[in-house]
Amino acid sequence: MTTPASSPSLKALLNPRSVAVIGASEDQTKFGGRLYKTLLQHHYDGAVYPINPGRDQLFGLKTYPSVADTPQAPDMVVMALPRDKVKDEIAACAARGAKAGIIITSKFSDAGPEGLALEREVVATAAAHGMRLIGPNCLGLISPANKLVLCSSPAVNVPRLIEAPIGFISQSGALMGTLFDRSYGMGIGFSHCVSVGNQADLELNDFVEFLIEDERTQVICSYVEGIKTPQRFVELARRARAAGKPWLMVKAGATDDGRRAAYSHTASLAGDFAALKAICERENVVLMDDPLDMLSLARAMVRYPRRRVRDVAVFTTSGGGGAITADQLSRAGIGLSTFSEATMAGLAEHYSEGQGANPIDVGGRKPDATGDIGAVTAELALADPGVDLGLMVLTTAPDVPGLTRQMAEGADRPAAGGKPTLYVMLPGRVATPAREFLVERGLPYVDTLAEAMAVLRGWKAWSTYQEPDAPARPADMAATPVLAAGTLGEAASKALLEQAGIPVNAERLVRSADDAAQAAAELGFPLVLKVVSPDIVHKSDVGGVALNINDTDELRQRLALMQASIARAAPQARVDGFSLQRQEGGELELIVGARHDPQFGPQVVVGAGGVLVELLKDVAVLPAPVDAASARRAVEGLKIAPLLGAYRGRGALDVDAAVDVIVRLGWLAHELAGSAGRDFEIEVNPLKLRQQGQGAVAVDARARIGQA
Amino acid sequence: MTTPASSPSLKALLNPRSVAVIGASEDQTKFGGRLYKTLLQHHYDGAVYPINPGRDQLFGLKTYPSVADTPQAPDMVVMALPRDKVKDEIAACAARGAKAGIIITSKFSDAGPEGLALEREVVATAAAHGMRLIGPNCLGLISPANKLVLCSSPAVNVPRLIEAPIGFISQSGALMGTLFDRSYGMGIGFSHCVSVGNQADLELNDFVEFLIEDERTQVICSYVEGIKTPQRFVELARRARAAGKPWLMVKAGATDDGRRAAYSHTASLAGDFAALKAICERENVVLMDDPLDMLSLARAMVRYPRRRVRDVAVFTTSGGGGAITADQLSRAGIGLSTFSEATMAGLAEHYSEGQGANPIDVGGRKPDATGDIGAVTAELALADPGVDLGLMVLTTAPDVPGLTRQMAEGADRPAAGGKPTLYVMLPGRVATPAREFLVERGLPYVDTLAEAMAVLRGWKAWSTYQEPDAPARPADMAATPVLAAGTLGEAASKALLEQAGIPVNAERLVRSADDAAQAAAELGFPLVLKVVSPDIVHKSDVGGVALNINDTDELRQRLALMQASIARAAPQARVDGFSLQRQEGGELELIVGARHDPQFGPQVVVGAGGVLVELLKDVAVLPAPVDAASARRAVEGLKIAPLLGAYRGRGALDVDAAVDVIVRLGWLAHELAGSAGRDFEIEVNPLKLRQQGQGAVAVDARARIGQA
Repeated sequence: MTTPASSPSLKALLNPRSVAVIGASEDQTKFGGRLYKTLLQHHYDGAVYPINPGRDQLFGLKTYPSVADTPQAPDMVVMALPRDKVKDEIAACAARGAKAGIIITSKFSDAGPEGLALEREVVATAAAHGMRLIGPNCLGLISPANKLVLCSSPAVNVPRLIEAPIGFISQSGALMGTLFDRSYGMGIGFSHCVSVGNQADLELNDFVEFLIEDERTQVICSYVEGIKTPQRFVELARRARAAGKPWLMVKAGATDDGRRAAYSHTASLAGDFAALKAICERENVVLMDDPLDMLSLARAMVRYPRRRVRDVAVFTTSGGGGAITADQLSRAGIGLSTFSEATMAGLAEHYSEGQGANPIDVGGRKPDATGDIGAVTAELALADPGVDLGLMVLTTAPDVPGLTRQMAEGADRPAAGGKPTLYVMLPGRVATPAREFLVERGLPYVDTLAEAMAVLRGWKAWSTYQEPDAPARPADMAATPVLAAGTLGEAASKALLEQAGIPVNAERLVRSADDAAQAAAELGFPLVLKVVSPDIVHKSDVGGVALNINDTDELRQRLALMQASIARAAPQARVDGFSLQRQEGGELELIVGARHDPQFGPQVVVGAGGVLVELLKDVAVLPAPVDAASARRAVEGLKIAPLLGAYRGRGALDVDAAVDVIVRLGWLAHELAGSAGRDFEIEVNPLKLRQQGQGAVAVDARARIGQA
Repeated sequence: MTTPASSPSLKALLNPRSVAVIGASEDQTKFGGRLYKTLLQHHYDGAVYPINPGRDQLFGLKTYPSVADTPQAPDMVVMALPRDKVKDEIAACAARGAKAGIIITSKFSDAGPEGLALEREVVATAAAHGMRLIGPNCLGLISPANKLVLCSSPAVNVPRLIEAPIGFISQSGALMGTLFDRSYGMGIGFSHCVSVGNQADLELNDFVEFLIEDERTQVICSYVEGIKTPQRFVELARRARAAGKPWLMVKAGATDDGRRAAYSHTASLAGDFAALKAICERENVVLMDDPLDMLSLARAMVRYPRRRVRDVAVFTTSGGGGAITADQLSRAGIGLSTFSEATMAGLAEHYSEGQGANPIDVGGRKPDATGDIGAVTAELALADPGVDLGLMVLTTAPDVPGLTRQMAEGADRPAAGGKPTLYVMLPGRVATPAREFLVERGLPYVDTLAEAMAVLRGWKAWSTYQEPDAPARPADMAATPVLAAGTLGEAASKALLEQAGIPVNAERLVRSADDAAQAAAELGFPLVLKVVSPDIVHKSDVGGVALNINDTDELRQRLALMQASIARAAPQARVDGFSLQRQEGGELELIVGARHDPQFGPQVVVGAGGVLVELLKDVAVLPAPVDAASARRAVEGLKIAPLLGAYRGRGALDVDAAVDVIVRLGWLAHELAGSAGRDFEIEVNPLKLRQQGQGAVAVDARARIGQA
């Protein structure tokens, strides 16, 4: 694991006052030539030292034969040398006292074991003099906040840098260049963009920490393939939240195909997406599917800081556009605000009957409507307390630029309360002047409805986040025992659960019919009988499970039948006896479990049980320990949640009991994992949930405890 | 209902040889002025008659005081007059012998009853002379195939029209303009675009018919809010299919919010989306969510006629881009082809170890890879028999235009077999020359991954369509009875099902304990008892259902209990007796039903039964009658389909039996609806499905028969 750099030094590293470009030249076909020219072009105000042994000056700047000859040690060096020259150059730079270096060169750990060995040597060489490294196999740095571009991508060849409080850390250099390019055209700027490459030394989380502390950054964007330091990731997410800086993330490898592709790309394992997603949900790191949508959301968030978005008003120049937008909002789970009576009355003054509703088609205005109908509409609708954002869906109309200006003006009026707007510019050329106006005013826009939906989904996810409570360990929960490694059978697993205060159905181990009859008298009918054998995994397959046993005669018969069936179907199996259990009723079967994720530690899982498990994939994952409110939100967020209320003649179910089981399982998981992160797995399937006040009961369970 | 125009006349109407522009002027602030100027600008080669009583000539063309003065009757007239002048002008045009007229003017049936009355008068006025009308409240016509533009949208102000075999019919004028504008910028052309407006005379299906017969159209696009002539829609879908012309459609009002918005826009009911979707699936009309994506798919389809697309190869300039693309393909249900050994071997010559797999990152090439690696890669991958399409995901790289050229060249080589490609141009300015190259070559591209996914989803839906068989009425199915209107109780509903050959559980109506005991002896245990009363709707709520009755004593007890419970809970209810039914076992509960859709006629519904109905919304709708193969595909396409195979120790279920029930229900529905389209509803819930060879049985049913 990388040792976190102390933050003051990171701040200095990434805001260098002097830069040396190794291999600088005037040749634009070479990395060094492009890098150098781009650096000069953007008027970086620190010192620049071009290094080239064959030249006295380059583009008018004094040039040095080697880094050893520069008038002072450069804060930062950048190089795109052939691989076999990198180590010696880094040694020279480190010896000269350079504080940080960017290595663009690839084919290090990204190209197999030999490259990895060389990469380690390079890092050690730098570290010997306290020098830190970015890369190798990266595209470098673009810092509009410092007018500093150390990047060879053709994307940085722009007339001027746009500075905005958006930081962007990318585990793919090509994507960083692409997104810089695309967002430039839309008027989206950045504070700092960093391509992290192989993260041989400085890694993603170092740069995130830098952005959290950077006063010129308000929103953090990240493209991530794998996370090297998961615990630090969690700490940083909390610090970002405390600093009021939204953290957005696109994670490659959310699906199996994506995971394989990400692996072949970086040779770093992508990790379990469900585990990461659970952490992101708990910490309000907003996961998005597409990096361009991530930047569009960031742009909107920096334009409208700390605004929460749930329900929107739609203004459109086309009834058809309004109908399609309403369909897409509904599919995306974004609310179409219901206007207040005051808003409706206000709109009715300007719109024909039935037209002043959400979505508002400006074409439905009265023939004698006021000339600034766009401004009036935007003002009225944004003033509605039920509206969080105005979504302006523009189609081709006689004066799109004029209408856009009107809408922006209306949104600026005091009654509109400074609420956010998002423009969807469906037209092409016709809307070019309108786009230019929006860019100039810094107003967020996108070009398709799909992008608008992605932005709104992410914004809503961020807005509806609820800070978890501090998890409280139930007072009556016994100490979690220290367990030996191995597989626990049903009885041992249930004993573990019972110690944690999780209700399990009563059971007795019996070995004979008389035993069974006596145990039945204690347990009471109806009963379930199951064979207990270390050799039988699928009990049903050998006739080893009997349900619905209603009296002692039936119990004796079913036991005899079971013994005969097992003798026939599994003659070699060692039979330790039979478990006689109270058959428990329940209205709904849940599955609950706990496991240890190698990256993020102990987690609890809760989902639909029975046949629904495999069909619905209806599962929530929660990092352990879990507070009761988070457990409740998870249960109430399941697809089967409608079944938790009163349903088909029965009362509501005992959600409190399910929450209590999750909380206890969370502490059990937390304590089983311990500080050393011991591996384990517990599965309760099913947990039967009864009506309110009647609790829940675990009727089957298994567990596996890994090496300590 | 509109009488379908005979097609030869429609062909003549929409390919006019002369056009009169009523209210033509040079004033570009007026509709008539813009319309007239745009018409002249695109070099229409028919005769143009500007009509303006105050002018002798306009833009150098002889101008006529009235349509009565033109040298010959114009084939088509177009007008954007104030509403109160429209009727008289139409009268004059019709009298002069004009064949067709476009009325741009709005506030007719779109503005309430008074407007509707006027609209009807206008249509009648034209019809009296055999003149047909487009609109009112429309944006007119753009026919690049005829160099004819009769449209006042600013979008048509383009330097030259692009002709391509894509026809587009839009129920929203603003959307037509917007899409024309946006697609113009992407190099997408059209044969004919028509804005249908209020469809007072000619309606959507007339234009679809025209496009089916038009030899300059290969793909039909449509934006639809409501369908006026559903039966004709179905006939036309078949004709389009027979003609080999894909028909793509965006339907507003797929969700409740969208339906409300569409209604307030056109005041025409959007109809039931599920019913329309069922028809579209049966007839291979491809439904899409977004109109721009529809045009992108159309462009790809006309570039690669009759190509089927299921699985794709991804070529990218960025490993990160490849990983995100793989994630998005997986979520969209598009296959990432697994390359053959030959392809892998071919790629291994040019790519580093582990890099020549799908998605292919061109950055993973060997250091000594050939200079035309883009071409070589495209050729090799497209030659793979498992690849249907090459998806080129371009990120910012040193030479995006060069690489794009290479990929296009590789795809053109004979080994690539002419397979389709789709470029995703993620970069902005950097890729402008590459976009220009693609436009020039007519190669389809999109600018975001989301658009690519929408195009591929639509293309795959079209490609995997299976023509339904002719439905065959089961030979042993009795004639469907003629029923009186009213609600059928359980027994009557089951009798109706049984007549159609659908198995129902045996039951007897009993009125006393002795009755019941005797009936039980005939039926056999276990049994179910249900109260029969016209006054009791929810039997469970009054203790009117008893399950699991295992012997005669229990039966007597439970009957007595039920009588007492009902006497207490529903003392006023008339009790006709009690239904004693065999309790049927089954492994899976389905819900099946039939209904009459007011637009599309009888339909069968099949879905997950039990608690899953409401949770999963797992329902397939099939137009009736249904052929067995379609019924099977519907059942096997349900979310619960995994439960149809062997599962948790039991064998596979009797899907044949479910299919047979659907087929019989389909004929029952077809015959109940009859040619007059009688309204009705049948619901069987649950249909219990057993293991293979053991059939299915309906254990509860209800029906409602509407007025004949």
